[in-house]
Amino acid sequence: MVSKNQKKLIKSLYQKKYRKQHGLFVAEGKKVIKELLEAGMKLHSLFTLDPNIFDIPTSCEYEINKEELKQISFLTTPQVALAIFYIPETKKVTLDHLILALDDVRDPGNLGTIIRLCDWFGIKDLICSDQTVDCYNPKVIQATMGSITRVNISYVDLKEFLTDKVGVLKVFGTFMDGNSIYAEELPEQAIVIMGNEANGISKDVQDIIEHQITIPQFGASKETESLNVATATAIVLNEFRRS
Amino acid sequence: MVSKNQKKLIKSLYQKKYRKQHGLFVAEGKKVIKELLEAGMKLHSLFTLDPNIFDIPTSCEYEINKEELKQISFLTTPQVALAIFYIPETKKVTLDHLILALDDVRDPGNLGTIIRLCDWFGIKDLICSDQTVDCYNPKVIQATMGSITRVNISYVDLKEFLTDKVGVLKVFGTFMDGNSIYAEELPEQAIVIMGNEANGISKDVQDIIEHQITIPQFGASKETESLNVATATAIVLNEFRRS
Repeated sequence: MVSKNQKKLIKSLYQKKYRKQHGLFVAEGKKVIKELLEAGMKLHSLFTLDPNIFDIPTSCEYEINKEELKQISFLTTPQVALAIFYIPETKKVTLDHLILALDDVRDPGNLGTIIRLCDWFGIKDLICSDQTVDCYNPKVIQATMGSITRVNISYVDLKEFLTDKVGVLKVFGTFMDGNSIYAEELPEQAIVIMGNEANGISKDVQDIIEHQITIPQFGASKETESLNVATATAIVLNEFRRS
Repeated sequence: MVSKNQKKLIKSLYQKKYRKQHGLFVAEGKKVIKELLEAGMKLHSLFTLDPNIFDIPTSCEYEINKEELKQISFLTTPQVALAIFYIPETKKVTLDHLILALDDVRDPGNLGTIIRLCDWFGIKDLICSDQTVDCYNPKVIQATMGSITRVNISYVDLKEFLTDKVGVLKVFGTFMDGNSIYAEELPEQAIVIMGNEANGISKDVQDIIEHQITIPQFGASKETESLNVATATAIVLNEFRRS
């Protein structure tokens, strides 16, 4: 059974403000929940159609029926279970490796894909501007497929964060009209910034960037849309790692 | 106004079977419709809240109200207009360049992103297995942002298509355990195959592939999910083009 208070809590966690207030987030589906448990994420409570699929203390497990799951799920097709986890503490950012920074990425699907890419390319620290979509947004959690447990994600005032780092690390940013990424020397330790879906990197942050890079376009048409930020991130991280 | 028959036609076009039968597809939103018109796609009819935004013959234009648009739109937030276009004829595939082939890619968002990538990287021919999601699916059309007009997309029996080409062109396929794509010589003229979201490249097609390639993983974790097919395509096309 799900109590009225539990329902209220779960619904509230679809809003960033209440996630922050409670220090909790929601994950759904057997696979995602299992990955989060295996990675050592601290469980608050779990609501499941089938209590046999998770090996967890019974004190935080609640057996529910399909109707109840439908009421608390944010998915169009609810899966077998919904869990509430504690938001882990952010670790200190270390500067001895490649760091990815996002300036105001708004789409949860894009952020989810980018977190998976960080996991693939061994990027330990992902820095997000305060305006970037919250990584504990349920849509992001579903899109990351558990890789959120292997990437340390920090929300910061990006301009302030970068200001200290210039001089210590090379700062790269992606632009429509920068230097070809193929021609640039891409160091192992650096910060690389990807911008907002519609507007790219903000003016404030642009001023701090030393190296403006671009993924060359091979199609001839002027009408071609710029690459989506998630696919551009895939190419940029691949370029840094291959070199 | 939208007549009963027009409504019926539009609704039917959300199904592949009827798109094929009528030779028509639906596009929504000012930007997408404008791009399709500018690229010379043949218009069947257009339903719009504001008849001033498109420069088209009045005989195929219908002014409608918000309520009517909501009834015919497949978007959660309907935009200003919905258009029906004729599906263009597929051109013959030419073999003197890099060709991308998809083996059973099912997600419309992934196909849309891949078509945009083809446009960016100047890939003229995209070959899709018959099981791949239809490129005139409304979700694909919305995701391509008009780049569908600059890529020639053919649906084929992929095994049969490839069987003739082996010997003429080098055939590459992406696998979890192939050779590092960084170490392979990637020719300007070739076919490169991407597989299904869950199962990769099918057994039948695997047998024909001469060069099994892989995007190296840099993260240490075994739990890391494989890259999403759209982000993997971004990296693969970038690797072929940069070399």
